[in-house]
Amino acid sequence: MTTTSTPPDSRTEAALALGDDALVLSHRLGEWAGHAPVLEEEVALANIALDLLGQARVLLSSVGDEDELAYLREERAFRNLQLVEQPNGDFAHTIARQLYFSTYQTLLYGQLAAADGELAPLAAKAVKEVAYHQDHAEQWTLRLGDGTAESHARIQRGLDALWRFTGEMFQPVVGLDIDRTALRESWTASVTAVIERATLTVPSGPQSGAWTAGAGRQGLHTEPFGRMLAEMQHLHRSHPGASW
Amino acid sequence: MTTTSTPPDSRTEAALALGDDALVLSHRLGEWAGHAPVLEEEVALANIALDLLGQARVLLSSVGDEDELAYLREERAFRNLQLVEQPNGDFAHTIARQLYFSTYQTLLYGQLAAADGELAPLAAKAVKEVAYHQDHAEQWTLRLGDGTAESHARIQRGLDALWRFTGEMFQPVVGLDIDRTALRESWTASVTAVIERATLTVPSGPQSGAWTAGAGRQGLHTEPFGRMLAEMQHLHRSHPGASW
Repeated sequence: MTTTSTPPDSRTEAALALGDDALVLSHRLGEWAGHAPVLEEEVALANIALDLLGQARVLLSSVGDEDELAYLREERAFRNLQLVEQPNGDFAHTIARQLYFSTYQTLLYGQLAAADGELAPLAAKAVKEVAYHQDHAEQWTLRLGDGTAESHARIQRGLDALWRFTGEMFQPVVGLDIDRTALRESWTASVTAVIERATLTVPSGPQSGAWTAGAGRQGLHTEPFGRMLAEMQHLHRSHPGASW
Repeated sequence: MTTTSTPPDSRTEAALALGDDALVLSHRLGEWAGHAPVLEEEVALANIALDLLGQARVLLSSVGDEDELAYLREERAFRNLQLVEQPNGDFAHTIARQLYFSTYQTLLYGQLAAADGELAPLAAKAVKEVAYHQDHAEQWTLRLGDGTAESHARIQRGLDALWRFTGEMFQPVVGLDIDRTALRESWTASVTAVIERATLTVPSGPQSGAWTAGAGRQGLHTEPFGRMLAEMQHLHRSHPGASW
């Protein structure tokens, strides 16, 4: 018997990878609530967080119970990129993380929407949302890079610090049939163009440590993720099923 | 020369009262980001917080610079009700706060939308949003009150604890020409009906201490507000005008 549909395991792995990326970054951005530098930005970050949470819910509920997957999974079972779990830092650091990730998401969902797989309908909807996230990140990168000496230094510091987490985006993902070479080339061209227009410097170091490439997708996470997860799961774990 | 328009001082006072209510509650609800009991509720609370933040921005920017008003005002210059500054507590406590406040806001904006004042256009838009907030709070009050013994006890505790902050809603507000008797009667009837349908008991204590009635609108706030404000204003105060 031959079938063209993806076997359940691969489907689950793919949905968890993309769903966990969205879930974790949504929570990180949610941490800005009440702490954004201006009210307008508070609205923008909250809207981006809500888009991502919506994507996460569709993906996670396609392979299980969304609340169990979000609140009751162990750290090692999360499949998100290490990039999205990195702490917010200052606003420029958050924007650097947004630039790297939203560019990746736009290209990835673009490919998935064009392909004929199970994720195509979700990707077609999500690509419109993440294109806005990418535009938001690009506008802020330009504004900060081309702003004061202080803002320039801060966004450069964010870009440099997060650079080593970008290589993981181009590692294979079980169940995701994408052109990784094209993804990497487009991502690099897009990010380079924005960074240079912003009068900033494209980081030159390695995009991952030898042992860390693809680690998040395999359930290996950095130390700040454990703390974030503990906080996020605390209520649910102490009172399973409670909704008061 | 006679004029029917409200003098600037009263206009400012009215906009600050309503704008600060919305701003402060938006921040409190934003604290649920990443901590809601289920993902669906995380989305709902974030959407309510965004509605309120939008209302706050319109109101505050109508009388000054929204960011200066939000981030650089001293505690005593905030005009919000003490009810909205109360800490989230557990989910049931938050729902009790939502029930009391959203019922008030729906009735208040309903009156303002029907009147011919400067706030009518804003109120006409806001009343649609807050009617949804009220529906959300009522549905949850019913679900918790009529749920498990634990959820019933928790929502009753929230209703009881916050009752003493409800009297302030019916005090006069400079610049707001509303029928306070009708407001109080409609509020009491509406809240009583929901609480009784939820098999809960309407609190019987005083709706304010003698010295606290109207205190929030006069700039007197409870101790948790100072902590919330310090956190909310920290970034801005340490680096005025920064947006990185």
